[in-house]
Amino acid sequence: MFEIVAEKGRARAGIIKVGNVTLETPAFLPVATKACIKTITPSEAKEVGCKAIIVNALHIYRRAYEIVCEKGLHEFMKWDGIIFTDSGGFQSIKKFPAFVSDDGVIFKMPDGREEIFAPEKSIEVQRNIGSDFFFALDDCPSYPYTRERVEKAVERTIKWAESCQGGNVFVILQGGTYEDLRLKCIEGVSSMNFFGYAIGGLCIGEPKEEMHRMVDITTRALPKEKPRHLMGVGSPEDIIECVKMGIDIFDSAFPTRNARHATIFTSRGKINLGKRKVKGDVIDEACNCYTCRNFSLDYLNYLFKEKEPLAMRLATIHNLKFINDLMDRLRKEIMEG
Amino acid sequence: MFEIVAEKGRARAGIIKVGNVTLETPAFLPVATKACIKTITPSEAKEVGCKAIIVNALHIYRRAYEIVCEKGLHEFMKWDGIIFTDSGGFQSIKKFPAFVSDDGVIFKMPDGREEIFAPEKSIEVQRNIGSDFFFALDDCPSYPYTRERVEKAVERTIKWAESCQGGNVFVILQGGTYEDLRLKCIEGVSSMNFFGYAIGGLCIGEPKEEMHRMVDITTRALPKEKPRHLMGVGSPEDIIECVKMGIDIFDSAFPTRNARHATIFTSRGKINLGKRKVKGDVIDEACNCYTCRNFSLDYLNYLFKEKEPLAMRLATIHNLKFINDLMDRLRKEIMEG
Repeated sequence: MFEIVAEKGRARAGIIKVGNVTLETPAFLPVATKACIKTITPSEAKEVGCKAIIVNALHIYRRAYEIVCEKGLHEFMKWDGIIFTDSGGFQSIKKFPAFVSDDGVIFKMPDGREEIFAPEKSIEVQRNIGSDFFFALDDCPSYPYTRERVEKAVERTIKWAESCQGGNVFVILQGGTYEDLRLKCIEGVSSMNFFGYAIGGLCIGEPKEEMHRMVDITTRALPKEKPRHLMGVGSPEDIIECVKMGIDIFDSAFPTRNARHATIFTSRGKINLGKRKVKGDVIDEACNCYTCRNFSLDYLNYLFKEKEPLAMRLATIHNLKFINDLMDRLRKEIMEG
Repeated sequence: MFEIVAEKGRARAGIIKVGNVTLETPAFLPVATKACIKTITPSEAKEVGCKAIIVNALHIYRRAYEIVCEKGLHEFMKWDGIIFTDSGGFQSIKKFPAFVSDDGVIFKMPDGREEIFAPEKSIEVQRNIGSDFFFALDDCPSYPYTRERVEKAVERTIKWAESCQGGNVFVILQGGTYEDLRLKCIEGVSSMNFFGYAIGGLCIGEPKEEMHRMVDITTRALPKEKPRHLMGVGSPEDIIECVKMGIDIFDSAFPTRNARHATIFTSRGKINLGKRKVKGDVIDEACNCYTCRNFSLDYLNYLFKEKEPLAMRLATIHNLKFINDLMDRLRKEIMEG
């Protein structure tokens, strides 16, 4: 169940309740592609306010399916929060030859055997590993794409969606940067039974204004009462803009990847660490994360200069807290009208 | 002050008290070369029982001297335990051209300027950064070495020791695998004023029996009442053997480096992780570290397979707990006679 508890303009504060699971929105999901948020533990993720994460079902299927089916994903990775799973992202896995056909994603198992993730198979795997929220299989062309390629993607995505329907499934909307194809995709899945809508195929290289324009027309076209997930969006500025347009849930590697590459978000802007010119005691006066409570900016900067692995972890903790604090603030602002 | 509180054969249980500092021996010091135990925080180090660490003063001097002089090393790295500092290890720093002359270690600063660590300078730096225990500058030839080179090293080490004397300084003994040179080095520093003796120049490639033989003859020749530090030794088996021969303190990158290379110590022996054949729930039934309490062997093994950075950290926590538990057990056995 998804309930909108407050609105401000087109922005919404909501609550998702399914079984024991409760998630207040707007919410940000850190990426735990391989059943691990890079560099941090589940308890650290909790401490910085993460309630839900997103794991890649295709990865788990290829690398740890048997054990995860047996134990369940929550128990395997010791995460008792909410788990979303998708089957995308295979484009970005190195040494992983995969391509999309009319029938699904064709890929190689580690032993060289070829397999296909048909839409039904994708859902079956997400169910078997014990995920809380699933994403329907979609065809997401890499950018730059031709209109023809995106037309094909929309066609496949609608067709696949049919066999992915279910009470805890988000359908992924494609359509590239073509307004008419975006609307066509929404129309094509509108009569199907899904928990919510996910906007896919954005933030993959297209101009930022195009991304915003697509989010804008999509959120205007979607039914109000279902949750809206924007895939791959994670910069603080983009999150703020997209919440204003009515997005409820985000997932992205942006905060964690930036942290590993020595960029932290602070209340006085981004700081690139590992540089001689960075100096100071307090990392972010507005933050009370473990990193800010315990270490100085000088030391964190020094750890990055020295390429000490602890640096990435301390920055990841901070960036996730920063984003979660932002989500809390946005929710509060909407609640207060 | 160093007090021997119990003996069993040649093994000793002791206590070091200097100012506020108390360290029970036998003790193991993890290596925090660059003012950071790789992958873990000071609070994690404490939690696994670390009381003291060893930092490289030469590294700090080259990379963060100004700020560390200002704040003190404890405050800079947020470690309120004991800090030992040495000035060795420059042989192993890549992209760091350094060599030893009669006057000290000659090296380049990051800006290309050449500097020399004379023995007095080495002590001055260790004092300025606020270390608790210092090591005198020594000349440690890399293995394999000629007898002539080791003779030279012993000569220099004795000469340098003269100007390094002090109430919290350990003098480092050289002599390679030559019994007579080892004894000559001990004799050469015997009338000087030091807190304790450190055995250097071992575990650098010589056969293991030679290492044991040198520790044996050295501990027999040293005065009983001063603490003995064995540099670079850190495998569980070597620690046990060397405690039996009367070593009180060890420092080594062995447990932490092994952890980062996917080898963990357990009560049922070493396990190499990241392998398909490793399976099981409990990591080490005899261990109650954070890693063993929270994660399964299957998951830790999987994290290494996937090269997830969290793996190294979880293994580091476990290996340090394993070594510290071993030290506690050894101390207890000596105390119980």
